[in-house]
Amino acid sequence: MTSKPFINSERLLTSISDYARIGATPGGGVTRLALSEEDQQVRKRFAADVAGAETTLRVDDIGNMVAIRSGREALSPIQIGSHLDSVRNGGRFDGALGVLGGLEVLRALADAGHVTRHPIELINWTNEEGVRYEPAMMGSGAAYGVFERGWVGERTDRDGIRFGDALDAIGYRGDLAYRPEPGAAYLELHIEQGPVLDEADVAVGVVEGILGITWLDVVVEGQADHAGPSPMSTRRDALAAAAEIVSMVEGLAVEAGPPVVGTVGRLSPDPDLINVVPGRVEMSVDLRHQTSAQLNDLVAEFQSRLDAIATRRKVTVTVDRFWTSEATRFDAGIVGAIAASADVCSPGALRLWSGAGHDAKYAADGGPAGMIFVRSRGGLSHCEEEMSEDDDIAAGVATLLETVLRLDTALSSND
Amino acid sequence: MTSKPFINSERLLTSISDYARIGATPGGGVTRLALSEEDQQVRKRFAADVAGAETTLRVDDIGNMVAIRSGREALSPIQIGSHLDSVRNGGRFDGALGVLGGLEVLRALADAGHVTRHPIELINWTNEEGVRYEPAMMGSGAAYGVFERGWVGERTDRDGIRFGDALDAIGYRGDLAYRPEPGAAYLELHIEQGPVLDEADVAVGVVEGILGITWLDVVVEGQADHAGPSPMSTRRDALAAAAEIVSMVEGLAVEAGPPVVGTVGRLSPDPDLINVVPGRVEMSVDLRHQTSAQLNDLVAEFQSRLDAIATRRKVTVTVDRFWTSEATRFDAGIVGAIAASADVCSPGALRLWSGAGHDAKYAADGGPAGMIFVRSRGGLSHCEEEMSEDDDIAAGVATLLETVLRLDTALSSND
Repeated sequence: MTSKPFINSERLLTSISDYARIGATPGGGVTRLALSEEDQQVRKRFAADVAGAETTLRVDDIGNMVAIRSGREALSPIQIGSHLDSVRNGGRFDGALGVLGGLEVLRALADAGHVTRHPIELINWTNEEGVRYEPAMMGSGAAYGVFERGWVGERTDRDGIRFGDALDAIGYRGDLAYRPEPGAAYLELHIEQGPVLDEADVAVGVVEGILGITWLDVVVEGQADHAGPSPMSTRRDALAAAAEIVSMVEGLAVEAGPPVVGTVGRLSPDPDLINVVPGRVEMSVDLRHQTSAQLNDLVAEFQSRLDAIATRRKVTVTVDRFWTSEATRFDAGIVGAIAASADVCSPGALRLWSGAGHDAKYAADGGPAGMIFVRSRGGLSHCEEEMSEDDDIAAGVATLLETVLRLDTALSSND
Repeated sequence: MTSKPFINSERLLTSISDYARIGATPGGGVTRLALSEEDQQVRKRFAADVAGAETTLRVDDIGNMVAIRSGREALSPIQIGSHLDSVRNGGRFDGALGVLGGLEVLRALADAGHVTRHPIELINWTNEEGVRYEPAMMGSGAAYGVFERGWVGERTDRDGIRFGDALDAIGYRGDLAYRPEPGAAYLELHIEQGPVLDEADVAVGVVEGILGITWLDVVVEGQADHAGPSPMSTRRDALAAAAEIVSMVEGLAVEAGPPVVGTVGRLSPDPDLINVVPGRVEMSVDLRHQTSAQLNDLVAEFQSRLDAIATRRKVTVTVDRFWTSEATRFDAGIVGAIAASADVCSPGALRLWSGAGHDAKYAADGGPAGMIFVRSRGGLSHCEEEMSEDDDIAAGVATLLETVLRLDTALSSND
C-alpha cells in the first residue's frame, strides 16, 4: 500500500544549494554556460541524482537529458522540464529550480512508493539561455522541430568552437532516437523573473501563456548639423525624433495595458559627438502581446504613430520587423489542473502571463503544456542577486507535484 | 595720389581655388589638419603670397603667422584673422575664406597704393579646428592667454605626437616675441556654417556676438530589467527617462527662442541589448545663449525640469557641467562699422549671432572685435558639400575691405 507523496523541502533546498556550488561565482550566483566544463559537471551530478530516483536516463543527439520513471499503463508520459545552464553571472534559481523541483517530485514519488499511471519524464534541456550559442531554447526548439539538427551542430561560439564539437567534448552527444516527443502533458516550474508576484505578495503564479514577441530594427535618418549654428527651427534631428519614438513605444504599451510591454533596448546616434546634431539613429523595438493578432495590431499602431513623427519632423524612418515569436496560450486543461493544485498548495495563487520565452513554449507547440511561476524577490533575475524564498520554492514544487498527481488521474481517459 | 581700393573678385576666387588644391579630397573638399604636411604646404603658399603684398611675415612660437603691412602713423594695428587648417574631409571655405579675404584686402590696398594710418595685420591662426590637437582655437587662445604655452606644446595627437614636435617638423616654430597682441580692431570674415542667411536669402551677415556655450554630462540611473517579464508600471527605464530629457532639452531651446539652441549629441544606453530595459544612460547636453546670465538661467531651468523627470520616473540623475565658454558680445563700434560697410557693399545684410566659436572670440577678450558672415548654401559646413557662391564671397570681402578703410579713419582719435 502506497502513501500520498509529499515533497521534502529540506532535501529540495539542499539540492538547490549543492547545484549552486557548480560554477559558483564570488557574488553568490552561478556561471554555467551551455556545454562548458561547468555544464558537464552539473550534468554528471544530475545523472547521478536521477539514477537514485528510480529512473532510466536517455540523452538525445543534442544533449537533452531525459530521466524516465516508468508508469503502470502504456500511456504517453507526463513531462517536467527546465534547464541547468545559466547566463554569465546568473542566479542559482533560473532553470535549476525547475529541474530540481522535478527531481524532488521523482524522489517524493519514490519515497511514497507511488507508481503513476503515466511514465514521468524529467528533462534537462540543452542550452536554454542561448548565451554561448545563439539562439535561446535550442534544445527544446530542436526537439520540437524548430531548429534543424545539422544547423544546431554548426552554431559557433565567440571562439569559433562548433556546438557539435563542444557537445562531444563534454561527452553528452546521445542518440537521435532519444529525442523527447510530445507527451500527455508538459509542465515547467520557473522563477517569475519579474515583479508581479512580489508586488502582489503572492508565492506562486499560474501561467496563462507566453506573450508573442516581435523585434524591429528602426533607422531614423535626419540631417547632421553643428549644434551651434543650426537654429532649432531648421533642424532635422534624428535623436530628437528617436527620443519621441522611445516615448511613443512606452505610451503604446501603457495604453494597451498589462501584460503588454514595449521596450527600446538599443539606441545609437551617429555621429555621437557632443556638439553635433545627430543625423542618424539606429534603435531596436521589442513589442509583446497575448495573441498574434493583437501583436500585429500593436505593430500597425506603432507604424502609424512612427509615420506621423517622421512626417512632422521631416526625417525618414525605415522599419525592419526581423523576428517574431508567436504567442502561446497554454492548454486550458493543464492551466486548470495547475490552478486547482495551487489552490491546495499555495492558496491565493495569481494568474499571469510570461513575458519571457521558456522551453515550455516549444513544448506547447507539440502538446498540452503549462507553467508554474515562483515569486522572484524584486523581480530580479539573470544576476547574482536573483532570489526566491525557501517557502515560495516549497510551495511551487508542492504545486508541481500536486499537478502531476492530478493530471495522472485526470488524463486517464483521454490521452 | 592714391585711388580708392577695390577688391579684384577674379583674383580672390582664383586664390580660393588654388588653396583648395592643397589637401584636396576626391569629393571636392579639403583635409588640412593642423601641423600636417598639407598645413605646411598651405603655410608656404601663404608666406609667398603675403610677401608679394607689401608685408613682413612674423611667426610666433606656436606657429601663428602674422603678415604686417606698415601704416603711416604709430598706431595699434587693425587685424584680420582666420585659419587655413581644416577638419578631415572639410570644405574649402571654412577658415580659408577669412585668410584669403584678408589677403585680397592687402592686395587691393597695394594695387591702389593706399597706405593706411594703422598697420594692417593678417593672421593665420594655428589649429583653429582642434581636430588633430584638442582643444579648438588653440593658436588664438594661446595668443590671448587662455592656454599656457608649455601646455599647448605637450598636447598629443592620436599617434602620440606632441604638438611641439609636430610644429618643429613642419618648420613653423617662431618667436614668442612675435605673438599677436590686441590691436585697434580685430576683424574675421567667415562662412556662416548655418542656414540663417540662406533661409533669409541674404548674402552677408553682421555678427552681433558669439553665443555662450555650456556642456553638461548627464547620467541617468534606473534599473535594468528583462523586456518581457517587467510590467510597464514597475520599470525604472533609464532610456525612457533619457528620451524625455532629449525632448525636454529641445523644448527648452524652442521656448527660449532664437538664437538659443539646445542639443543632445551623445547618448548611450547600458546595457545596449534589444531585450533588456536599459538601467543606465550617459548623455551629453549642449546649451547656448547670448549672455552668461541667460545661459545660467537656462541651465537652472534645465536642472529643474530634469529633477521633475527624475522624481516622477524614480530614476537618479547626476549632472556635471564640465565646460563653459562665456558669451561674447562684439564691440558696438566695430559692429557698427561692419553694418555701415555692409549697407554699401551688400545692402540688406542681416544681423545675427554666431552659434559656433571662432578665433574672434579670444580676440574679443583682448580688444574690440567683430565678424562678418557669408551665406553657406543649405547651412552645410565641415563637409565636402560646403558651398558659398562667388557673388556672396565677393560681397563679404568687399565689406571686409570697406570696414578696414572706415575703421582706419574712424579709430584715428581714440586708439
